[in-house]
Amino acid sequence: MKVSIVGATGYTGAELLRILHNHPQAEIIHITSESSTGTEIASIYPHLTAIYDKKLISMQEEEKLAESDVVFVGLPHGHAMKLAQKLVPQGVKVIDLGADYRFSDKKIYEKWYKVEHTHENANSAYGLPELYRNQIKKADIIGNAGCHCTAAILALTPLLKAKLIEPKSIVVDSKSGISGAGRSLKLSSHFTEMYDNLTAYSVAGHRHMPEIEEVLTDMAGENTLITFVPHLIPMARGILSTSYSALKPGVTMDDIDAAFYDLYKDEYFVRLAGRGVSPATKHVRGSNFCNIGWQLDQHSGRVIVMSVIDNLVKGSSGQAVQSLNILFGLEEHVGLEQAPLYP
Amino acid sequence: MKVSIVGATGYTGAELLRILHNHPQAEIIHITSESSTGTEIASIYPHLTAIYDKKLISMQEEEKLAESDVVFVGLPHGHAMKLAQKLVPQGVKVIDLGADYRFSDKKIYEKWYKVEHTHENANSAYGLPELYRNQIKKADIIGNAGCHCTAAILALTPLLKAKLIEPKSIVVDSKSGISGAGRSLKLSSHFTEMYDNLTAYSVAGHRHMPEIEEVLTDMAGENTLITFVPHLIPMARGILSTSYSALKPGVTMDDIDAAFYDLYKDEYFVRLAGRGVSPATKHVRGSNFCNIGWQLDQHSGRVIVMSVIDNLVKGSSGQAVQSLNILFGLEEHVGLEQAPLYP
Amino acid sequence: MKVSIVGATGYTGAELLRILHNHPQAEIIHITSESSTGTEIASIYPHLTAIYDKKLISMQEEEKLAESDVVFVGLPHGHAMKLAQKLVPQGVKVIDLGADYRFSDKKIYEKWYKVEHTHENANSAYGLPELYRNQIKKADIIGNAGCHCTAAILALTPLLKAKLIEPKSIVVDSKSGISGAGRSLKLSSHFTEMYDNLTAYSVAGHRHMPEIEEVLTDMAGENTLITFVPHLIPMARGILSTSYSALKPGVTMDDIDAAFYDLYKDEYFVRLAGRGVSPATKHVRGSNFCNIGWQLDQHSGRVIVMSVIDNLVKGSSGQAVQSLNILFGLEEHVGLEQAPLYP
Amino acid sequence: MKVSIVGATGYTGAELLRILHNHPQAEIIHITSESSTGTEIASIYPHLTAIYDKKLISMQEEEKLAESDVVFVGLPHGHAMKLAQKLVPQGVKVIDLGADYRFSDKKIYEKWYKVEHTHENANSAYGLPELYRNQIKKADIIGNAGCHCTAAILALTPLLKAKLIEPKSIVVDSKSGISGAGRSLKLSSHFTEMYDNLTAYSVAGHRHMPEIEEVLTDMAGENTLITFVPHLIPMARGILSTSYSALKPGVTMDDIDAAFYDLYKDEYFVRLAGRGVSPATKHVRGSNFCNIGWQLDQHSGRVIVMSVIDNLVKGSSGQAVQSLNILFGLEEHVGLEQAPLYP
Repeated sequence: MKVSIVGATGYTGAELLRILHNHPQAEIIHITSESSTGTEIASIYPHLTAIYDKKLISMQEEEKLAESDVVFVGLPHGHAMKLAQKLVPQGVKVIDLGADYRFSDKKIYEKWYKVEHTHENANSAYGLPELYRNQIKKADIIGNAGCHCTAAILALTPLLKAKLIEPKSIVVDSKSGISGAGRSLKLSSHFTEMYDNLTAYSVAGHRHMPEIEEVLTDMAGENTLITFVPHLIPMARGILSTSYSALKPGVTMDDIDAAFYDLYKDEYFVRLAGRGVSPATKHVRGSNFCNIGWQLDQHSGRVIVMSVIDNLVKGSSGQAVQSLNILFGLEEHVGLEQAPLYP
Repeated sequence: MKVSIVGATGYTGAELLRILHNHPQAEIIHITSESSTGTEIASIYPHLTAIYDKKLISMQEEEKLAESDVVFVGLPHGHAMKLAQKLVPQGVKVIDLGADYRFSDKKIYEKWYKVEHTHENANSAYGLPELYRNQIKKADIIGNAGCHCTAAILALTPLLKAKLIEPKSIVVDSKSGISGAGRSLKLSSHFTEMYDNLTAYSVAGHRHMPEIEEVLTDMAGENTLITFVPHLIPMARGILSTSYSALKPGVTMDDIDAAFYDLYKDEYFVRLAGRGVSPATKHVRGSNFCNIGWQLDQHSGRVIVMSVIDNLVKGSSGQAVQSLNILFGLEEHVGLEQAPLYP
Repeated sequence: MKVSIVGATGYTGAELLRILHNHPQAEIIHITSESSTGTEIASIYPHLTAIYDKKLISMQEEEKLAESDVVFVGLPHGHAMKLAQKLVPQGVKVIDLGADYRFSDKKIYEKWYKVEHTHENANSAYGLPELYRNQIKKADIIGNAGCHCTAAILALTPLLKAKLIEPKSIVVDSKSGISGAGRSLKLSSHFTEMYDNLTAYSVAGHRHMPEIEEVLTDMAGENTLITFVPHLIPMARGILSTSYSALKPGVTMDDIDAAFYDLYKDEYFVRLAGRGVSPATKHVRGSNFCNIGWQLDQHSGRVIVMSVIDNLVKGSSGQAVQSLNILFGLEEHVGLEQAPLYP
Repeated sequence: MKVSIVGATGYTGAELLRILHNHPQAEIIHITSESSTGTEIASIYPHLTAIYDKKLISMQEEEKLAESDVVFVGLPHGHAMKLAQKLVPQGVKVIDLGADYRFSDKKIYEKWYKVEHTHENANSAYGLPELYRNQIKKADIIGNAGCHCTAAILALTPLLKAKLIEPKSIVVDSKSGISGAGRSLKLSSHFTEMYDNLTAYSVAGHRHMPEIEEVLTDMAGENTLITFVPHLIPMARGILSTSYSALKPGVTMDDIDAAFYDLYKDEYFVRLAGRGVSPATKHVRGSNFCNIGWQLDQHSGRVIVMSVIDNLVKGSSGQAVQSLNILFGLEEHVGLEQAPLYP
């Protein structure tokens, strides 16, 4: 498979390069950057020295991109939908790591992202393979799931599909390492400000809330209502999503256990830590795994689900490669078998 | 005031020494440790070199402790109630940094702490001065509030007193730096394990849950029901408590704002960051402040309150000194005026 | 004393505000910022909320600055010498936290700082009180010592004054927390880049090398030759300077011990950890102390000296306040008695 | 190749398991632990869940170990020499991650490790493949190089082989993440103590000093004399070795450059960052690379060499796998092609 990466100098682009280096069937043919066109990628990311000796081109060189079987897009929202409309008709698959193709309802996208959606009837799928692999198989474009979303949706879907929780009672308290804020410079990503520090952000206003809600509503088959608050944790990688949901009357701990095992028992990338076990982000660092633990709070009648992912792998580039594998008929874990880097 | 510290080699003991060094009226006369009796405190805590040249004695030397006006107890639960029964009759005030005197209902204490409570009708008060200062004034014994509890109770009391939230809808997602786990050695406090890592612990089973619930019930004047999950954050100091509560019908954002300003406008140590502002733990590090921000999630009808404290100061030793000041008729902030250490 | 701070929004300015808040004789009258003129300082540094309610003015308002007894300058090099030439004739003392007044030899300044020095015969002193307090007493302008320099000079002066080491054999390997790079945004201060990371910088080209060398030459009474390499450590505050020097023939461990105790036995801020003891940066965090330990490497005939400071206190703002106290006839430790914040 | 790991529950054992999971020719047959015999490895290291479902056996089950083609030993010194004497005669290769087979001169070993060496004429080689691969090929036992040693020796060998530096002038200031201290619990590995902290340890007394010195003497063909000081850095993984050496008269920067490129130009795992470039530990994290940069300090006549490795990979388990590949006639990088995990 000939692969290009548009927007290769962000963290998700660099992570794609790291992962695809060990993919037996992917060959990187082009990488782009508008601000660093002409530069060697290894001069921007020295860890890639002697692994890639590729120069960055401009995404304007569309005829080059069209030589690809698949193009990953690691750009802010708005760009992918323009690019996909040019590339898909030439037989190129597009995997967007941004938000352009994550929403079924273009109104939600437009409300939260403040731009017009210009590619409404695209043949696209939501890029969360455990739940949408059949759609991914047939799609031309993948809207790779958001990082907080992946963690929350994998945690809550078993309970919603099995009708065990009240769909409007859900609180998601999500905690992310600071790589999730990207490589661009801002005070809230400044080392000295964030080290030994902790804060919430975008409280009740983060764009991952409507994404989680739309997907969980799809999974539940009825409307869900989510309160979502993300937090910045002074670490580089990792998301822990702690969710709180009211149980429906009569639900037992065994029902809860069964819901998780039934849905995920054959999933390569979902590892069930089990009842009463707290997963830790470092257990999945650098890997495409999602570890999930849960506990029933008898006292309050709420179930607490904790899920951990590496935000740059299962929360972004690794999950995108998982979709790539589906698109091209490979086993989902090809190129993604690395064990987590612990400690 | 002649002050002694029983259990001076834990983090809360060392923090008392740090704070009291700048207290104009407190004089440390004895410090104890059973494992390090006879040792200079500065050899255990080199940061105290040239500040204290005191040797540790044994807490068995009760006649020495009885020379104190006040004794702080920084020991695991169970010890303080024995000690207080000996010291109080000799005219010594006791401030317990542990749990022995935190509960009104001894059954709750016994259920969660698994020991018999042997000092039921003590003249004690709950050591959270903003809410219990009148009781503290008259007490012989202070049960200093728990760290997660202080953050959660200060955050939620305004809303409960003003009857703005459903008292059984409350979820408290609390995040603590690892100093909260103390100086004893365990794998979950091992640097390499916890650095760049994140996990929940004691999910639905932490002893601060019943403490929060009992105090909030007292504040609300009706039963509350709390789901409480603490998390370990890879930083040394600080607690961020994020709480989620369902609003009662008809409550407006202005009602919420008013509740906070009404209760706290004259409090020296409570700083209201305000509506829509996310406080950060580093804004209070090393100080006795509690910063509080809040946001209404219109979409879900929940109010989110975020409060930050330094777990070793307002969450422990600083708050204990605040109670000391009340006990001895001083202004509450005497010795506690240090600005936070930022960054 | 009426105090103003020019350039109050950098970390050294904020640290001056923190320290002076507890200084019994200093009153802050003006604080300046060119980029944030008119803004409340607490909106830039929320940890100062309810401690300062001051608005930033422009440093162009020179008549206001002239109302001060002393002006601290926390600006990049080049500004202080312009300002001092205006303020000193009006009877205002100037304490420069930058480099303008650190060098005796203006040629060295001009070579390393690439600007002309326009205030050559200023009545200034090098702001390292333990070694230059007599000069400070009589000066109008203090050139506060650099952070790496303070740690290295305090460590090596005893050995050079006592003629125990070869003055051209000195290697200084210095390690600094990232706050030393300031609050301005750059990739090398980006959280995700520097967390769990470690690197040297400005190898053999850092401006603190000539400063160390000039002062040590003054101390030694003969030419010294220094190799100096600073490193960035993934922590917020602290400097550890590890220096390696060849012993002169016949020097014994007792000679080394004596050199340290002779010079520093009466110094409030220098704490001698002693022979064979490794000081740690956290032992001095938030304080104006410098802890020093040393060891003789019999095998190679080198002596290793390790000194630790908080780069923002003894390495910058705290040391500046120490000079302030000298300038105004106070005890040096006034306002600087806070115990270190540990852990 | 049938592989067993004796002492699999330490960090080096866990890292071997991580690396060998992706090795196409290695099959793990036994793993041992004396304290956790009978336990699943994934219950000790949850990151290995669904990757290994193996139970730990006791190293007393020697007949099982003898089924292996190669046994890695991840135990404190003293154990490997007993085990190797039993296994080698049965045709099993032994790769010791400890110190038993690192020294040519048994007297140095006995002096520094305080035990008798009982296997003096073993057919062993020093496990640093770039410099000893011919010896490794023919050996039965590999004494895998120490972590600080690997970084320092790779940095200095080019200069010593080319006779560019004074062999008795060398200072090595080494900085290590805390995983280097292992998983056992001690105050100097406690999160709260070490976070935001920095200190030297074992000053002029660390066992890696004689190891570095013996190997560099071998490389130089003349006696070397090393001052070595290791430091603990508040991060999990990584070593940066900064070395300072006096140049011989007449040596030019080009000579230095040539020495590095001549020795390493064909080495897969040594990446030359080049003159004037400071390598960072994160550029090699999780990989078997060693990145090297250097700079001439014209002023003092010293050359500064900086080398970075991941202490658990090139500094331990990765390098051991590199030797494994040599022993079994494979390309050295088989199973070690993962790109570094950045950021």
